[in-house]
Amino acid sequence: MDVQGLLDDIREHLTPMIGLGDVAGYIPSLAGVHPNHFGMSVVMPDGEAFGTGDWEKPFSIQSISKLFTLAMAYAADGDQLWNRVSREPSGDPFNSLAQLEQNSGIPRNPFINSGAIVVTDRLLSLNDGRNSGLLEFLRTESGNPGVTANPEIAASEAEHGYRNAAIANLLASYRNLENSVPDVLDEYFWQCSIEASCRDLATAGGVLTRGGLRADGSRVLTASEAKRINAIMFTCGTYDAAGEFAYRVGLPAKSGVGGGILAVVPGRCTVCVWSPGLDAKGNSLVGTAALDEFTTRTGWSIF
Amino acid sequence: MDVQGLLDDIREHLTPMIGLGDVAGYIPSLAGVHPNHFGMSVVMPDGEAFGTGDWEKPFSIQSISKLFTLAMAYAADGDQLWNRVSREPSGDPFNSLAQLEQNSGIPRNPFINSGAIVVTDRLLSLNDGRNSGLLEFLRTESGNPGVTANPEIAASEAEHGYRNAAIANLLASYRNLENSVPDVLDEYFWQCSIEASCRDLATAGGVLTRGGLRADGSRVLTASEAKRINAIMFTCGTYDAAGEFAYRVGLPAKSGVGGGILAVVPGRCTVCVWSPGLDAKGNSLVGTAALDEFTTRTGWSIF
Amino acid sequence: MDVQGLLDDIREHLTPMIGLGDVAGYIPSLAGVHPNHFGMSVVMPDGEAFGTGDWEKPFSIQSISKLFTLAMAYAADGDQLWNRVSREPSGDPFNSLAQLEQNSGIPRNPFINSGAIVVTDRLLSLNDGRNSGLLEFLRTESGNPGVTANPEIAASEAEHGYRNAAIANLLASYRNLENSVPDVLDEYFWQCSIEASCRDLATAGGVLTRGGLRADGSRVLTASEAKRINAIMFTCGTYDAAGEFAYRVGLPAKSGVGGGILAVVPGRCTVCVWSPGLDAKGNSLVGTAALDEFTTRTGWSIF
Amino acid sequence: MDVQGLLDDIREHLTPMIGLGDVAGYIPSLAGVHPNHFGMSVVMPDGEAFGTGDWEKPFSIQSISKLFTLAMAYAADGDQLWNRVSREPSGDPFNSLAQLEQNSGIPRNPFINSGAIVVTDRLLSLNDGRNSGLLEFLRTESGNPGVTANPEIAASEAEHGYRNAAIANLLASYRNLENSVPDVLDEYFWQCSIEASCRDLATAGGVLTRGGLRADGSRVLTASEAKRINAIMFTCGTYDAAGEFAYRVGLPAKSGVGGGILAVVPGRCTVCVWSPGLDAKGNSLVGTAALDEFTTRTGWSIF
Repeated sequence: MDVQGLLDDIREHLTPMIGLGDVAGYIPSLAGVHPNHFGMSVVMPDGEAFGTGDWEKPFSIQSISKLFTLAMAYAADGDQLWNRVSREPSGDPFNSLAQLEQNSGIPRNPFINSGAIVVTDRLLSLNDGRNSGLLEFLRTESGNPGVTANPEIAASEAEHGYRNAAIANLLASYRNLENSVPDVLDEYFWQCSIEASCRDLATAGGVLTRGGLRADGSRVLTASEAKRINAIMFTCGTYDAAGEFAYRVGLPAKSGVGGGILAVVPGRCTVCVWSPGLDAKGNSLVGTAALDEFTTRTGWSIF
Repeated sequence: MDVQGLLDDIREHLTPMIGLGDVAGYIPSLAGVHPNHFGMSVVMPDGEAFGTGDWEKPFSIQSISKLFTLAMAYAADGDQLWNRVSREPSGDPFNSLAQLEQNSGIPRNPFINSGAIVVTDRLLSLNDGRNSGLLEFLRTESGNPGVTANPEIAASEAEHGYRNAAIANLLASYRNLENSVPDVLDEYFWQCSIEASCRDLATAGGVLTRGGLRADGSRVLTASEAKRINAIMFTCGTYDAAGEFAYRVGLPAKSGVGGGILAVVPGRCTVCVWSPGLDAKGNSLVGTAALDEFTTRTGWSIF
Repeated sequence: MDVQGLLDDIREHLTPMIGLGDVAGYIPSLAGVHPNHFGMSVVMPDGEAFGTGDWEKPFSIQSISKLFTLAMAYAADGDQLWNRVSREPSGDPFNSLAQLEQNSGIPRNPFINSGAIVVTDRLLSLNDGRNSGLLEFLRTESGNPGVTANPEIAASEAEHGYRNAAIANLLASYRNLENSVPDVLDEYFWQCSIEASCRDLATAGGVLTRGGLRADGSRVLTASEAKRINAIMFTCGTYDAAGEFAYRVGLPAKSGVGGGILAVVPGRCTVCVWSPGLDAKGNSLVGTAALDEFTTRTGWSIF
Repeated sequence: MDVQGLLDDIREHLTPMIGLGDVAGYIPSLAGVHPNHFGMSVVMPDGEAFGTGDWEKPFSIQSISKLFTLAMAYAADGDQLWNRVSREPSGDPFNSLAQLEQNSGIPRNPFINSGAIVVTDRLLSLNDGRNSGLLEFLRTESGNPGVTANPEIAASEAEHGYRNAAIANLLASYRNLENSVPDVLDEYFWQCSIEASCRDLATAGGVLTRGGLRADGSRVLTASEAKRINAIMFTCGTYDAAGEFAYRVGLPAKSGVGGGILAVVPGRCTVCVWSPGLDAKGNSLVGTAALDEFTTRTGWSIF
């Protein structure tokens, strides 16, 4: 298959849509991103990378970080992790407090904010409270030591992070945090502010296409664990639009409000797309369309 | 692969568990089923059938009917169907009224009761109010003209069907029913009371493994539509345990409180398992374990 | 105090508002009522009656019936009644199913639809299933044998009563009905369709001003029981606007979507006002203003 | 009426119950209070005070503070205050986040935690961020300059105040706080930690019995405003047991988890009772029984 040609075709096909959707406006630093960006990258299990458009331009990964923190925490704790966070789709907005209250402080899954905050807390504990280890993991797996966090965005997230602070305090009230609320929030906002390109993320995501093998061939997750993360991604990875996304795209994927979506085609490749305009559920509008087009043209749905 | 040997192995492996779980007790006719049944069948795309245990013994298919009624309604209406029912996991029990009220009468997906009642209503309209056509479809696709409904169970469902009557009336209050409440409920209870064997269901389910082709080779769904039904099954097919089931089994599947589970391995086979004891979420306890074993041994997860 | 002069003053004062609000439109028979009606009546404990405007014109009492059915059921069952219905404000719309589900089939109070349906069911049982006895009670207490139900409205309620049918079926699913769903609904709709005038209702309501004594001096409720019904009316009588109504008017009152409101000034008098236009919460807009004016001018708040 | 004799009778009558219920255990400082305390005080509009048992022993007023902060904020802002907090019963636990989220950051009433936090925030703004002025108000109105806050309890509240921190952050996320989250929480915890006796509180509550007149005869609230606060107290003052409390006691009242309840008999007197054991809804078990007995014996219900 001519992957490069395919990517270029998809970009051309979607050109009329580029710029549609609403750029995330809840923090000024994100609101200033130009909506006309579009990048897409496909990376093979051996690391061979293809791309089109702004595929090498770093963007704010936001919630895509939740996929990698989950992988690290699950690798360390195994099924113990599920005592603190469930694996069910939420059916509620990603930052809902009502559901967390109803479930007595156990987040519905690791991809909504409350679940990711618990995962972050766990990684902090595993690293003696220093940090979650996410940045190092992303640099190593992407092969790009330039991946870095954006302090301005992290500060902006913290400044406007009242709802996440409410979530963290509610978790603490149910004794579902091991570290202090400010420490956990700091690390959480820091992770969300990391900037990486489609190429970086698709390369780093290879660990899930290779069944748990890192870029250097060492194993971080068993094949079964990697499959299970893909299953959680498929059912919970795109906020409360997981059903719609599964229906249209048919691939496990994790999205972020920065406009990125990272998808896994098990055994074949990873795909990362970026376009800042979001749909009503907070997923990249053009990014979703690009992945729809990708699975339609390749036939590479998981079904 | 020696499918027959695999099935026999799985049955032997699970023998110590058989009888565990609680047989559905909400209607007397189901409560009288002996918990020690276990049957499992694998059917290839060409119709070749394997089985072990009680694989040819009819049982009450209950909510597995929802998969076939969805396939028929979607084949007829296409994406129009989604104006009346969503495709999102519910995060709530299968018979919740709260969520239906919150979503103004639009069921979250076609596999919870409210969604299946809307689908049944639609099929009634398409067949001039006579019936949904489900029995004929199952007989043709299973190749077994002996598949039939159990009037005693249908009557028992109706007698104890207050909650479904509440759901149907609530749908009507939001003008999301085309036929009368009693007509729709009668047909819905009738469908749930159909009895078929693992072999029957696995054979009939072949339409989803073959990408939408019926047993006689004619097309009822496009390949894309068949994939999309599999996606809905994966995210919503096992009540509010869809995430847990996806995590453990990794296959699209639809369960029923009669203890049956029908799973699809796209392009390879369908698997149907039956064991009446249920877990806390209403899925067959031993059936889930059998499918877990099946995917572990074959490696045939979708991921 | 010159009660007659006071009533005339209030009517004149409110003339510019008369006609404001939206007439209940959920059934055609109610939607056809002209919005310009306004009547108000004050009746003393000894039965002396004053009135202004359309105070002797019958209107659809709707949920004001719930006050009298509660009084009858409480008189018969005493505190046993509270095993089947609570006495707490609901904080949710009067016809919510979510809250009923959350509370496992125990309605929050007897003045929301679910609670009144349980009360009606109880009265049916106490009268051997014939009827609730409401019509006879109202005729006797109002001294007007012409009070009667409107079969056209009852039929219209039944035809559009899907949500109440959902509620009744949900109650039955929790085994909180003693009679059949259709029998209970028939009686419930019949009660709602009763037509009486402000004079009739204010006279009949005297039982609560007189501390439980009927018009003929016989006791139907103890003084303590009468007080307790007033307390429930105060906290729950005006749908989910009970707090706002308590704040503005400061009297126990029960409203109906026909535009009537019956209020009790314990020991002093009853006041009934009617004007069909409703506010956003379903209470008579001008009627509430009239009661506000009444308590402001007389100083007869309970506080 | 021999008020002193009445109080002594009530105490004797309740002696067998004293010690029942569970002392609030969420912070160590409260959990250490001995359950056998019982005090009750009645204060006339002119300040004449009666009492029995531990009526002059200071206890932790906790949420009774919410009544006085509401009075101060309403006196200052008038109906403007209702733009930031509603006046409806909540139907949910006093510290629920779900309802606050559903109502987009507008608390249901000023007596649940979220509402009182908004009121506290408003008082801080009115006092240039120094404090809410509550302590000064209580000292002046009770005539007891010894009323003071307990720093140990305030610190303990803060240490275990994750849920209130979640509420404050959620309020901030909806832009319903004017001051910083830490400043508002500090003041809120400080208010809750104030210690006063039944005599102090019943005396200070006189402002509501006197229709808004302070102890020195100056007016802080109009008669209408004082009535309206009583109405809110009646419908919302005892957590989600307001209906039950209204039914049993029939007086406007505000309770605290320290075991105090302050009730108003408009125009006649205020009553304050204290006994630390709580019922399931968080109201003093023996205190509620004492008020029930008080209204039964005096006939001084508002109905």
